[in-house]
Amino acid sequence: MNIDWIAFDADDTLWENEEVYRQGRDRCREILNKYAADAPIDQVVDRIEVNNLPYYGYGVMSFILSLLEAGVELAGKDLREKDVQELLDLGKKMLTQPPRVFKGVLEMLSFLGGSYSLMLITKGDLFHQQRKIKDSGLEKYFQEIEIVAEKTPATYQEILRRHHIRAEHFLMVGNSLRSDIKPVVNQGGWAIHVSEHLSWDHEDADLTAEEEERVIDVGRVEQVAEVLERLTAEKSG
Amino acid sequence: MNIDWIAFDADDTLWENEEVYRQGRDRCREILNKYAADAPIDQVVDRIEVNNLPYYGYGVMSFILSLLEAGVELAGKDLREKDVQELLDLGKKMLTQPPRVFKGVLEMLSFLGGSYSLMLITKGDLFHQQRKIKDSGLEKYFQEIEIVAEKTPATYQEILRRHHIRAEHFLMVGNSLRSDIKPVVNQGGWAIHVSEHLSWDHEDADLTAEEEERVIDVGRVEQVAEVLERLTAEKSG
Repeated sequence: MNIDWIAFDADDTLWENEEVYRQGRDRCREILNKYAADAPIDQVVDRIEVNNLPYYGYGVMSFILSLLEAGVELAGKDLREKDVQELLDLGKKMLTQPPRVFKGVLEMLSFLGGSYSLMLITKGDLFHQQRKIKDSGLEKYFQEIEIVAEKTPATYQEILRRHHIRAEHFLMVGNSLRSDIKPVVNQGGWAIHVSEHLSWDHEDADLTAEEEERVIDVGRVEQVAEVLERLTAEKSG
Repeated sequence: MNIDWIAFDADDTLWENEEVYRQGRDRCREILNKYAADAPIDQVVDRIEVNNLPYYGYGVMSFILSLLEAGVELAGKDLREKDVQELLDLGKKMLTQPPRVFKGVLEMLSFLGGSYSLMLITKGDLFHQQRKIKDSGLEKYFQEIEIVAEKTPATYQEILRRHHIRAEHFLMVGNSLRSDIKPVVNQGGWAIHVSEHLSWDHEDADLTAEEEERVIDVGRVEQVAEVLERLTAEKSG
């Protein structure tokens, strides 16, 4: 391992995200419960959300549009303008809530910045991600920030090309096996999988034995620095 | 003028966009007219759209969320779930409609690609812009594609930095004085303003006399190639 660049995912890796959506789903359930007390609201919302990804992509606006569609489906003619307004308000609240940065992240980034070039690679709505990056106070730790619509193998190829980085010198840190880990190790890069914060089921993936060899698992993101220090010490020791 | 890079705006410069929104507004007016025949629907929609920019940014999802808010305001308790569904359907239609590329654009890009590095700089929803770039068939003409949330002076500074381009070797082609022209010429770049296709009022700007000197006006985008040829011939002749 001879790493020059460390790239970090943001949502649920550096700051809390899934929790904001969980609260959003709770609020949606309260709003729609009166029409469909016995309906599997969560399942309906989840189905609509996944079906809508090809139209909307990821992010809060996508989520709210899907909740409105769920409202139409579950409440039918009973849907009231007040409910529509409440879902729109929920979206604005989610969009303006400053991200809660996980413990130890600032110190870790500041420490790693002394030895590595740091990049942020986050997926979702461009406008909202930029706001969160700014509000998080983490912007200054990164030499490069990439906001992408999806994290496919092609996405990482394009990022490596743009910045003239060879895959074997690149390590990605993230909580999603599907978006952060598999597409990077699959093309010769390295990855640290942070498992403490659950990701959406949609973000799961199976790794081959070969891919597994290029992944280190840690519980909390702040452990990334000590893992890398240990590896460097082993190498030079 | 010693240009290496020519960057193009996309919406209403290389392909039709405002027309799609105009049709969207027409459809919205049909849907809401029954509740608010005498209300200034367009003004309400426009006000809500501009007010929502700090939450949603630009793009179709932003537009549809604003139309839904306008629906709540204009129809009040009369708003029906069918109208909500129709506005959601309108959004999906707008999001999947392949862009209509203007006449002469392919030939022009192909010709300019022989002498210049070409870049696409487009603003709005990342996911939708990527889809339009793909569906337009224009992707292959550009060495670099930048999708940005806003086109401020800082946006262009960051793009020039990333690609190691000096402003005086950079020319931007676009229809929006506010987004494509002013922030580029203001920092020492060059611009060609394409005036045939109207932009949203929000995209207007005043240029200083000094800024004006760095802008060439053309009617149609396909004229960009001949304007640049003429300038090069003058210089070497």
